Amino acid sequence: MTELLANYVCGQWQTGTGAGTPLYDPVLGQELVRVSSAGLDLAAAFQFARDTGGAALRALTYAQRAAMLGAAVKVLQSHRDAYYDISVANSGTVKNDTAVDVDGGIYTLSTYAKLGESLGDRRWLLDGEAARLAKDPLFQSQHLLSPTRGVALFINAFNFPSWGLWEKAAPALLSGVPVIIKPATTTAWLTQRMVQDVVNAGIFPAGALSVICGSSAGLMDQLQPFDVVSFTGSAQTAAVIRSHPAVTQHSVRVNIEADSVNSALLLPGEALGSEAIDLLVKEVAREMTVKSGQKCTAIRRVLVPQSLYNHVAQALSARLSKTTVGNPRIESVRMGSVVNREQFVTVQQGLAYLQAQTEVLHDGAQHTLVDADPAVACCVGPTLLGTRNASGSDASDRVHDTEVFGPVATLVPYRDQDLNHALQLIRRGQGSLVASVYGTDHGALARAASELADSHGRVHVISPDVAALQTGHGNVMPQSLHGGPGRAGGGEELGGLRALGFYHRRSAVQASTQVLSQL
Amino acid sequence: MTELLANYVCGQWQTGTGAGTPLYDPVLGQELVRVSSAGLDLAAAFQFARDTGGAALRALTYAQRAAMLGAAVKVLQSHRDAYYDISVANSGTVKNDTAVDVDGGIYTLSTYAKLGESLGDRRWLLDGEAARLAKDPLFQSQHLLSPTRGVALFINAFNFPSWGLWEKAAPALLSGVPVIIKPATTTAWLTQRMVQDVVNAGIFPAGALSVICGSSAGLMDQLQPFDVVSFTGSAQTAAVIRSHPAVTQHSVRVNIEADSVNSALLLPGEALGSEAIDLLVKEVAREMTVKSGQKCTAIRRVLVPQSLYNHVAQALSARLSKTTVGNPRIESVRMGSVVNREQFVTVQQGLAYLQAQTEVLHDGAQHTLVDADPAVACCVGPTLLGTRNASGSDASDRVHDTEVFGPVATLVPYRDQDLNHALQLIRRGQGSLVASVYGTDHGALARAASELADSHGRVHVISPDVAALQTGHGNVMPQSLHGGPGRAGGGEELGGLRALGFYHRRSAVQASTQVLSQL
Repeated sequence: MTELLANYVCGQWQTGTGAGTPLYDPVLGQELVRVSSAGLDLAAAFQFARDTGGAALRALTYAQRAAMLGAAVKVLQSHRDAYYDISVANSGTVKNDTAVDVDGGIYTLSTYAKLGESLGDRRWLLDGEAARLAKDPLFQSQHLLSPTRGVALFINAFNFPSWGLWEKAAPALLSGVPVIIKPATTTAWLTQRMVQDVVNAGIFPAGALSVICGSSAGLMDQLQPFDVVSFTGSAQTAAVIRSHPAVTQHSVRVNIEADSVNSALLLPGEALGSEAIDLLVKEVAREMTVKSGQKCTAIRRVLVPQSLYNHVAQALSARLSKTTVGNPRIESVRMGSVVNREQFVTVQQGLAYLQAQTEVLHDGAQHTLVDADPAVACCVGPTLLGTRNASGSDASDRVHDTEVFGPVATLVPYRDQDLNHALQLIRRGQGSLVASVYGTDHGALARAASELADSHGRVHVISPDVAALQTGHGNVMPQSLHGGPGRAGGGEELGGLRALGFYHRRSAVQASTQVLSQL
Repeated sequence: MTELLANYVCGQWQTGTGAGTPLYDPVLGQELVRVSSAGLDLAAAFQFARDTGGAALRALTYAQRAAMLGAAVKVLQSHRDAYYDISVANSGTVKNDTAVDVDGGIYTLSTYAKLGESLGDRRWLLDGEAARLAKDPLFQSQHLLSPTRGVALFINAFNFPSWGLWEKAAPALLSGVPVIIKPATTTAWLTQRMVQDVVNAGIFPAGALSVICGSSAGLMDQLQPFDVVSFTGSAQTAAVIRSHPAVTQHSVRVNIEADSVNSALLLPGEALGSEAIDLLVKEVAREMTVKSGQKCTAIRRVLVPQSLYNHVAQALSARLSKTTVGNPRIESVRMGSVVNREQFVTVQQGLAYLQAQTEVLHDGAQHTLVDADPAVACCVGPTLLGTRNASGSDASDRVHDTEVFGPVATLVPYRDQDLNHALQLIRRGQGSLVASVYGTDHGALARAASELADSHGRVHVISPDVAALQTGHGNVMPQSLHGGPGRAGGGEELGGLRALGFYHRRSAVQASTQVLSQL
């Protein structure tokens, strides 16, 4: 039998009961490790984190907690090779895709270590300036932000076992709020290993960081009014979490990041030969193939003026056809596998669902796998679909409503010179994490960005002057907000110090300035 | 038959079908007017507000919208006498209590008119400074706040038909978001009349402000992903709203203000004769009786050192016994009625529930009503309960969990010199809107305030130097946050310009500084 990974709760490593659930290599098919949370005393686990972990973290200043994040960064960097090994084995990712998760997670943690330093030797934050409540300036109102006295429960997605942990844990721990992480079972290994390395290094106080691998059953039942929960995953599970009595009756704060049908938009007026068109093609092909399209921020809809449809379709297809797919251990392979057999099947079903309203511009099935058995390996070639003509775009609904979580995108033409038509089509996504805009006219790009802002958590603008600098449509930078309204779940993560808001409670202290000056 | 009040939807006054629901005078018992929303085309109403109202509001700048709020203030001021007449008839309030609602609402609106001016000729807001995304400063991230392209639905409580409307509508309209207000049926008249006056004055564009009086059935079903809903009322209804598919599946943003068992805390160490004790007694008596205790911010628990229990009980009882209760039209009457027979019964039931764990220190039943028939008038005398000894405080759970929405408070002793005991008792409220703290030592007041901040939306500090300036424990100032975590619903309203956040969507625009400079 393979190793049964231990959970870390109540300041102790505890293995669950039973045989557990096996984790597999999605390329080679073999079992790697097993996880189980059966038999854990969840009530004790949450109470220990809330009371022991919370009190210890709150006793520290932001600067002290920031220093701990910095120490964790060093520990994680020293074990980086092990994380790459786990990632290739359990996630089927090529080296560049592993970097997005592993190095992306460590970079985000280090960013919060630096941001936290700037908050200094305080235990809570001032929010804005004091405001007079009367003509006499002696009585005023000062808003504070205080760390919530509860735990932060993270129920995470399979696609980012490292980054998904640290992008949430960094602002929580910096805020003084203990973390309980429940990674997606299928890739829980990397999360568990990273927590283990940090715990063993003895950086954080007992109860600050817990990991529970296996079923999520019963976790929500533990939540109390000052706890928070952050979920990344399907809209269906999100609805279950939002409907739980902890949320509906006890006002447990929720952050959701769910489905998102992100767009890339080529502005009207770009002539053949424009660098903006090349930049779009390059970015779309990259976004489709990074992590086999298993990024919640990946481009799903590509909007171009109708007269450029054929040109972009050909350029994209040419680029995609060069993507080698197969065993991520082979140097020449650019794209590994999706995460497991279930996702493999779901992607095929999603493709078939979209194909009923689209044409296939580049067929992923034509990619021969490199050093991988098609009967075993969960490898999916990149597929580009298209809705052909602009009026056809209006009739298609599936492309705007369906997130196929794999290397799949759809080319959607809009009426030439009609930016409003493009914006209307994008809005049919009902709120997304990110849209990218491509063009050469800075003013037109600014106007399009401001039109997209209310329905997207992030608008990524690519013009030729930043071609070499731009950080990528799908890369989530800790300096920028991550989240999106509507279908995308309505959550807000990252955005620099904005992320701390979720873990703090705002309060107005109305008092004599003699009192306020001693806060 | 009395008048059937019209609803204002789709830019037209429309009366509902059927006989409607009558509204009564809670002191004299007579029927006043009727309301009905039966037969309204709700889908059309929401669509008109969202599309026509929203587009027109968003086309204006913040300064232009602020000017409209200012114009609405003038209209409302010119009709103030009519609002006082409606309030005394329908809410049973004395003049001072009417002022809290009517003048409080107009003051809040005028505050946002002034705040809005400062936002100038913009149509969306910058959120913080741009942040570099790479060493080269050309590519940066700038956060924006854009008005959400949806409607704001307000489902409001009976106790503030004026203030409850304007404290929500002011920031929404200033943000460029159209408003649909559903007042509590029992006091809908004043809300409807104020909307009528503003609408008839032609200040706002068509669709900006709608009012639906009567049943709330079907309202939530109209909500779409970019809409928001703000609810004030019971925790039970709040849970129903939070569980609605609009919220759980479509990420409709929700703001809830629900039950709250607010506290007043006398710090340890105040000797008999201390002005702080007098200030506490005065404030508690006032809070218990203003609007017959029908304020979500009213003091419900009064925490004093055990050795001062008898003294405070006597001082409070003496003050309460002077409160004349009865017909609010009589000059000598200080406290009118609760809002209706149902609330009258609910208050009696709540009192009985608390009395099982408390002693009666001042019995409201001993107050003879002035010019009011006890068989008809919904008048309730102020009642002070007490848990007698500090260890008894620990055993009582009902006082920490039960909000009796009437002129009722409970004196809760804590162990002398043991501030932590008092804080623990207060925390058993599981999150409240407001706590007030009384003392003379500015440093001790500041420390107590910072300890209370994470579980209260507002901490009101009363020291002798601000005795004449302080704005009242229960008065909600637009400059300060209104809302509270946990049991209080987890919402955030007001707080100056912070209130605009609920009606805006945050987005990070990542672009060349050449693009960002043109935003």
